[in-house]
Amino acid sequence: MIKINENYLKLKAGYLFPEIARRTRVFEQGHPEARIIRLGIGDVTLPLPSAVVEAFGRAVDEMGEPGGFKGYGPGQGYEFLRKAIIDNDYKSRSVEIGCDEIFISDGSKCDTGNIQEIFGLDNVIAVTDPVYPVYVDTNVMAGRTGAGDGRGCYEGIVYMPCTPENNFTPALPSEAVDLIYLCYPNNPTGAVATKEVLSQWVEYARERRAIILFDGAYEAFIRDREIPHSIYEIDGAREVAIEFRSFSKTAGFTGTRCAFTVVPKEVRAYTAGGEAVEVNPIWNRRHTTKFNGVSYPVQAAAAAVYSKQGKIQVRQLTDYYMENARIIRGSLEEFGYTVYGGENAPYIWLQTPNGMGSWEFFDKLLAEANVVGTPGVGFGAAGEGFFRLSAFGDRQDIQVAMERIGRRHEALG
Amino acid sequence: MIKINENYLKLKAGYLFPEIARRTRVFEQGHPEARIIRLGIGDVTLPLPSAVVEAFGRAVDEMGEPGGFKGYGPGQGYEFLRKAIIDNDYKSRSVEIGCDEIFISDGSKCDTGNIQEIFGLDNVIAVTDPVYPVYVDTNVMAGRTGAGDGRGCYEGIVYMPCTPENNFTPALPSEAVDLIYLCYPNNPTGAVATKEVLSQWVEYARERRAIILFDGAYEAFIRDREIPHSIYEIDGAREVAIEFRSFSKTAGFTGTRCAFTVVPKEVRAYTAGGEAVEVNPIWNRRHTTKFNGVSYPVQAAAAAVYSKQGKIQVRQLTDYYMENARIIRGSLEEFGYTVYGGENAPYIWLQTPNGMGSWEFFDKLLAEANVVGTPGVGFGAAGEGFFRLSAFGDRQDIQVAMERIGRRHEALG
Repeated sequence: MIKINENYLKLKAGYLFPEIARRTRVFEQGHPEARIIRLGIGDVTLPLPSAVVEAFGRAVDEMGEPGGFKGYGPGQGYEFLRKAIIDNDYKSRSVEIGCDEIFISDGSKCDTGNIQEIFGLDNVIAVTDPVYPVYVDTNVMAGRTGAGDGRGCYEGIVYMPCTPENNFTPALPSEAVDLIYLCYPNNPTGAVATKEVLSQWVEYARERRAIILFDGAYEAFIRDREIPHSIYEIDGAREVAIEFRSFSKTAGFTGTRCAFTVVPKEVRAYTAGGEAVEVNPIWNRRHTTKFNGVSYPVQAAAAAVYSKQGKIQVRQLTDYYMENARIIRGSLEEFGYTVYGGENAPYIWLQTPNGMGSWEFFDKLLAEANVVGTPGVGFGAAGEGFFRLSAFGDRQDIQVAMERIGRRHEALG
Repeated sequence: MIKINENYLKLKAGYLFPEIARRTRVFEQGHPEARIIRLGIGDVTLPLPSAVVEAFGRAVDEMGEPGGFKGYGPGQGYEFLRKAIIDNDYKSRSVEIGCDEIFISDGSKCDTGNIQEIFGLDNVIAVTDPVYPVYVDTNVMAGRTGAGDGRGCYEGIVYMPCTPENNFTPALPSEAVDLIYLCYPNNPTGAVATKEVLSQWVEYARERRAIILFDGAYEAFIRDREIPHSIYEIDGAREVAIEFRSFSKTAGFTGTRCAFTVVPKEVRAYTAGGEAVEVNPIWNRRHTTKFNGVSYPVQAAAAAVYSKQGKIQVRQLTDYYMENARIIRGSLEEFGYTVYGGENAPYIWLQTPNGMGSWEFFDKLLAEANVVGTPGVGFGAAGEGFFRLSAFGDRQDIQVAMERIGRRHEALG
């Protein structure tokens, strides 16, 4: 008799975004005249930069020519892309990364979801709270947790609350943890980590022989020159950190699909007997056995992000969204809301008025202003009473959304 | 202390194809003058059909336009592609499949590797021997096996030998098995399964409450009108079978990356307590949590495979390779080899002369004819003494390869 993986049955109904979609659909059906503005899901809205489109199209044409056609590519990605990443994202910041330490993939969601597979089931996982749900859910599926409680917390996971009091950078855990998920600039709070904060984490991981999974999907939105873009800007991080980067938010690749993971050769994990094992070849084995490389034209498109024109155009994209963030932040502050983030990240994390529940505020915002956002509690228990607005969107939509909120903010609580 | 997943340490050094690449490289370095012909890895060589390239390019252009840009798509794939699949691959063969039973992905390697995650670790896995290594390796990684022996077999897996004696269709297992991997047309043997053979499997699975994982990546190469293209052509299969299909070999997508998995609503797995659980929503949860959809232009390209021109051009592609297969098969028979497959599959499975070991034949063929093939034993213990030649390749290369083998076949053993 075929047995199901019962860990899946522990998962709470519905991933956050389907539930948002469902409530929005219900509202739409009841109010067909409403022009809903979506600032909920963190999806980009501007078209791909022309430098990217041109390289993408050229590579598609190559695939139709006998001399240009490409079949299976290297499972780890084409060298032309890995080299462009090393030169532009790392060498430029005095970080040395080897070509065989980069693994091209079709998304950071996949990478941050898959990475836990190569570690033992008995590791203790630490996540910030609130957190990107994929980190938690994939560990639940793998069987690293007990049951979930009513608040979306799973037994066995160490949650590290991020609150205004600790500036959304959690204290080091008091219990021993083995695998630490960090995301900076942070989704959903929009917080960033200074060099000092990251140094503490690297030191902690080195002392405890823990590994840090550093999700840097939003690094392109950092505007403060003092904030590190990569965890490898911290001394010693090559021994204890795996970094995830994506073209999704940087260059508008959410529908094009390209990302990468960096696994330095120095990173070690251990057998039950205490023997050190290099993590890079283990991830390589996973990546080349359960994945078969990214579409060649997509990789060519990603490489164009690093061309001269590409860099200029990508900066224009992120500047556009950051101007949206400035407008959202400024407007909400003007209306009297307490807001965080939005200065080095495309997310604004707002405190709901009068301690209102996150989902209640979601429903109110949808009903009163016809604006869709993301309830903070969807990212974890400590997100209750907060709400995420995304700066990805059309400028005019953002302005209209802010005007509506301004007009209706008394009704909003 | 971070623990590694020690199951990875059970895996035998190197996936088959890296080892082939290594030996070929060593030979090349010693014989820089040799013009090596590669019939080893099953990778297509003809460019993408023009109908596909045109649709692909148009979709890339859309991504550069404000009105055409697409961000995150549906995790299960765009409806336009799922509908085209249903109409062309299934309705045309009188098989009813629902849109929410199709999951678009970036490859059958990924899908056949990932599917085991949603089932319990205590299931007994059955695979044919020889077998596509991904089925086995991903179960080893997950911890469903004991150690490997020297012959590449893992403790706890039920291997079903496929030999000339059983026409490469194994007997039903005598022990109870829960999850059965079948691939027809078969990689590597090139064998096909008749309606009778598949009916036996479906009946077995229904009786034992087992699930069949049916890999149909090569269905487009079937030329015999009596051979089923889908396992759903068998009555009752919707209750017990998950089917995998790919555009890789059909339409030259090995470097473009698109495939799909069919999970009918009727398929059930069970909790330890014997409670039935629908598999479709569990796979949906896995697919939307650990994967983020296929690139929109790639999906548009895949849909063009089903356009009027696309269908004609794809048939030309597969016909070209099948003519290669006919040439290889005919030549080898003429030289006195015993050969199988190659009539409804792009693989020729040849018996090595005089019971020679597969790797010994690999080295001889490389040295004497400068032809690279795949040692049968790389696919499993029962593949020892066999050798796979792929019909993917340039016609002239195939002809030269056959001439060389003809000239040197005495030296080859």
